[in-house]
Amino acid sequence: MLMDDMGWGDLGLNGDPSRETVRLDQMAREGMLLTDFYAASPLCSPSRASLLTGRLPIRNGFYTTNVKARNSYVPQEMLGGIATSEILISELLAWAGYRNKIIGKWHLGHSRPEYHPVARGFHEYFGTPNVHFGPYDDVKTPNVPVFRDQRMVGRLFESKEFAIDRRRQLSNLTQLYTEEAIDFIRRQSASRSCQPFFLYWTPDSLHAPTFRSAAFAGSSSKASSYGDALVEVDHSVGRIMDVIRGDPRLAQNTLVFFTSDNGAALVSKTDAGSNGPLLCGKQTTFEGGFREPAIAWWPSRIAPDTRTAQVASQMDLFRTIVNLAGLEMPLNRTYDSNDLGPVLFANRSESGEGAQLNSSMFFYRGDTLMAVRNGPYKAHYWTFTNPIEEFRRGIDYCPGSAVANVTTHRLTPHQKAPVLFHLVRDPGERYPIPRWTAEYKWAKRQLDAIAEQHQAEMQPGVPVLNICDRAAMNWAPEGCEQLKMCLPKPISAPYHCDWPH
Amino acid sequence: MLMDDMGWGDLGLNGDPSRETVRLDQMAREGMLLTDFYAASPLCSPSRASLLTGRLPIRNGFYTTNVKARNSYVPQEMLGGIATSEILISELLAWAGYRNKIIGKWHLGHSRPEYHPVARGFHEYFGTPNVHFGPYDDVKTPNVPVFRDQRMVGRLFESKEFAIDRRRQLSNLTQLYTEEAIDFIRRQSASRSCQPFFLYWTPDSLHAPTFRSAAFAGSSSKASSYGDALVEVDHSVGRIMDVIRGDPRLAQNTLVFFTSDNGAALVSKTDAGSNGPLLCGKQTTFEGGFREPAIAWWPSRIAPDTRTAQVASQMDLFRTIVNLAGLEMPLNRTYDSNDLGPVLFANRSESGEGAQLNSSMFFYRGDTLMAVRNGPYKAHYWTFTNPIEEFRRGIDYCPGSAVANVTTHRLTPHQKAPVLFHLVRDPGERYPIPRWTAEYKWAKRQLDAIAEQHQAEMQPGVPVLNICDRAAMNWAPEGCEQLKMCLPKPISAPYHCDWPH
Repeated sequence: MLMDDMGWGDLGLNGDPSRETVRLDQMAREGMLLTDFYAASPLCSPSRASLLTGRLPIRNGFYTTNVKARNSYVPQEMLGGIATSEILISELLAWAGYRNKIIGKWHLGHSRPEYHPVARGFHEYFGTPNVHFGPYDDVKTPNVPVFRDQRMVGRLFESKEFAIDRRRQLSNLTQLYTEEAIDFIRRQSASRSCQPFFLYWTPDSLHAPTFRSAAFAGSSSKASSYGDALVEVDHSVGRIMDVIRGDPRLAQNTLVFFTSDNGAALVSKTDAGSNGPLLCGKQTTFEGGFREPAIAWWPSRIAPDTRTAQVASQMDLFRTIVNLAGLEMPLNRTYDSNDLGPVLFANRSESGEGAQLNSSMFFYRGDTLMAVRNGPYKAHYWTFTNPIEEFRRGIDYCPGSAVANVTTHRLTPHQKAPVLFHLVRDPGERYPIPRWTAEYKWAKRQLDAIAEQHQAEMQPGVPVLNICDRAAMNWAPEGCEQLKMCLPKPISAPYHCDWPH
Repeated sequence: MLMDDMGWGDLGLNGDPSRETVRLDQMAREGMLLTDFYAASPLCSPSRASLLTGRLPIRNGFYTTNVKARNSYVPQEMLGGIATSEILISELLAWAGYRNKIIGKWHLGHSRPEYHPVARGFHEYFGTPNVHFGPYDDVKTPNVPVFRDQRMVGRLFESKEFAIDRRRQLSNLTQLYTEEAIDFIRRQSASRSCQPFFLYWTPDSLHAPTFRSAAFAGSSSKASSYGDALVEVDHSVGRIMDVIRGDPRLAQNTLVFFTSDNGAALVSKTDAGSNGPLLCGKQTTFEGGFREPAIAWWPSRIAPDTRTAQVASQMDLFRTIVNLAGLEMPLNRTYDSNDLGPVLFANRSESGEGAQLNSSMFFYRGDTLMAVRNGPYKAHYWTFTNPIEEFRRGIDYCPGSAVANVTTHRLTPHQKAPVLFHLVRDPGERYPIPRWTAEYKWAKRQLDAIAEQHQAEMQPGVPVLNICDRAAMNWAPEGCEQLKMCLPKPISAPYHCDWPH
């Protein structure tokens, strides 16, 4: 279960004062809460590519070299998508006999057969290739299509079933995705074949402009559309979990992992989540951009009401799943993926003895390694929020927060003297460790060595997010004829995408 | 149980990523967590005076009129203290037959008999009249005395028993206070008289410069003295609670309330706690200055694992205790105290239906009403952090945070257009509600009316924190002769205390 732009601090158990994620909190109490769990990118497309490939965006190609250290993703006009040379976890599982389904937002490419999820290990697909951008006028720009398996079954905004009321921020999409998940799980459970399944459930209602179904409008004491949408996904998670809880065979044999694709998009102000005490949000390499709410649930193997401060990432789910499914990791590529089994299944007590794996986290922005974490220490080798011109226009990735020499508005190098934080003492990255201290010198030596080795061994993949082309948009996906929703495709005119931050 | 400078975000259940307050979290799971619980002041002395009197500092005199909107407290040279015209909860309970004890920091005046806790309803006293300021050279300034009941039994720093190793930040004081609490509770429980008791347990180890006992040095993954001190008080709370849990009569009949006197002192940087997502810290009228961790425990009356977002304050404990003890509120004065009984004993379910009492919170800084909260809305009529000259010298009450027109470095009026926040949507006070919205106009009208009525009815008490005098220091407390710790008292020379922020 992968949320879109949900923040670390949104979880009641992570300190949201309104504590409205009651079903997620229950799930965490029945399983394990991971407090130091990271995305692979502070942006949605690269994060999702890394989740499914177990590799950093710099390896799987989900980055740009158009400009140094710039964020990139898959907008409507993106020509690129997930390379066929990448092996997705869905593909490995399909080859091993799993039945796989993706419900919700794909975001790994469109308009080419090889970028379609049904070509990438997902037997079933109900959702959209992109986030709910729009509305588009369907002349200059097509509305985002909704797919059932290979075929488009409508478009966001214009199909009544997939309407999004922008003014009132209403849509029934999360409900559709919830029913679809329940239906899939029940279907798999009822089948005689005992075929195992992999469900990737990823609603996008928490992405600004957020939406909720009419029944949830006003359901949050937050009195915001984001708050309502959060109550709704919490409710949906509860409904899906109840299906699993209520079926002894499913409850016995199902690992459910809940997390988010990147930090809360603070730039959207009150139509966004919370990163709690963490610095900045989506788009940045500070904790607010990368650290995620994370819950692992599997009552027969994970002890209830446990938690871990193990440094881990969504990429670790790749190797964890491979091991659980009894498969082997592909040998011809480098992975950024650890097996979390020893952490998840350790059945540790409340006293929680801290990390078990010596993992490092590498914080990239585009083509640039900005920061490294190991143990409690994080070194920033580059700092950047967004350009000062953007900031002056009111675009702020760190609203209300400003740390001198840290939340910089130009790409600022710190290679010789990285800005160091102790993330347990100072999760908010407010107090750089003074350079003259022994602690600084010791931690710098460790982190420098880790960063140097990582960079010496790094072989970047071919960047796939450099070229845009309006012809790549979803003008006429398969199935549009019956719906009379085909649009004339313009002549191809590729150009270097503009990545402003 | 009143902590010193502990922050809202320090509690694991309030989102501290290290989650080391395991015993406090357990206490909250056995009882009720209050997420919107406030101190009466962002500073220790006024907060403590309000806790014991049930009245705002502006009423009980714990403020200054030397300068407008300035914070004040009880330093060593403070001439004033808690007025004899004030009625303390300890006095009411003593008159009703309770056995009362204060363990820890008093901070309501010294060097005059009427300011001594044993003269104010506490039959027993083990602790200090002030926080662990020092060390003093005992010539120009006496070290803070430690009292057992009426008599001084040593001084901080210089008495071996009460030593504080400043360099290593070590002291055994919290352990002494813990043993003392356990001894008192066991003694009361074992007595044949069934005399009820009131214990006010208030260690000051979390106040910078923090300290911990040697056994707890390095006990926190935070790798800070504050972190260790927090683990130690958490452990101490657990030990005290275990005594109560282990005695069926005590467990059946004891309300335990845990909170802090003001927000985390962010100015102390990494030797301080965390206010989680809240803005700024101690000394300010933002949420980080006022909102507190709060737990109510009473298994026979408070449902386990409940929580409330009821807006409430430490002053409410006065009326709550009066009602629980079957007493009557004094009639000849105004109280700022609601009975929390209906909230605590409602046995509400996890679904938590929000506030039950229509309480307003008034945020004063010295003589000035800075802000008002009602429901989710808070209006700032004045904003101020600290003077720009201080800030430029590195004294920062909001490190890493800066909100335009909000975290101001001069006392800035906003009476005509108060800065409004929706504290559920935006607990961090980052996004002022735009003035042109209907929401702003509606909420402003409500809050203006509440503020106006409050101010129209306000009769300020005589301010007791205006005058300082070095002769008021603890030169020769009762008992000093036997210890050979008397110091010559200088000639009285009162002056207006300097309150720089």
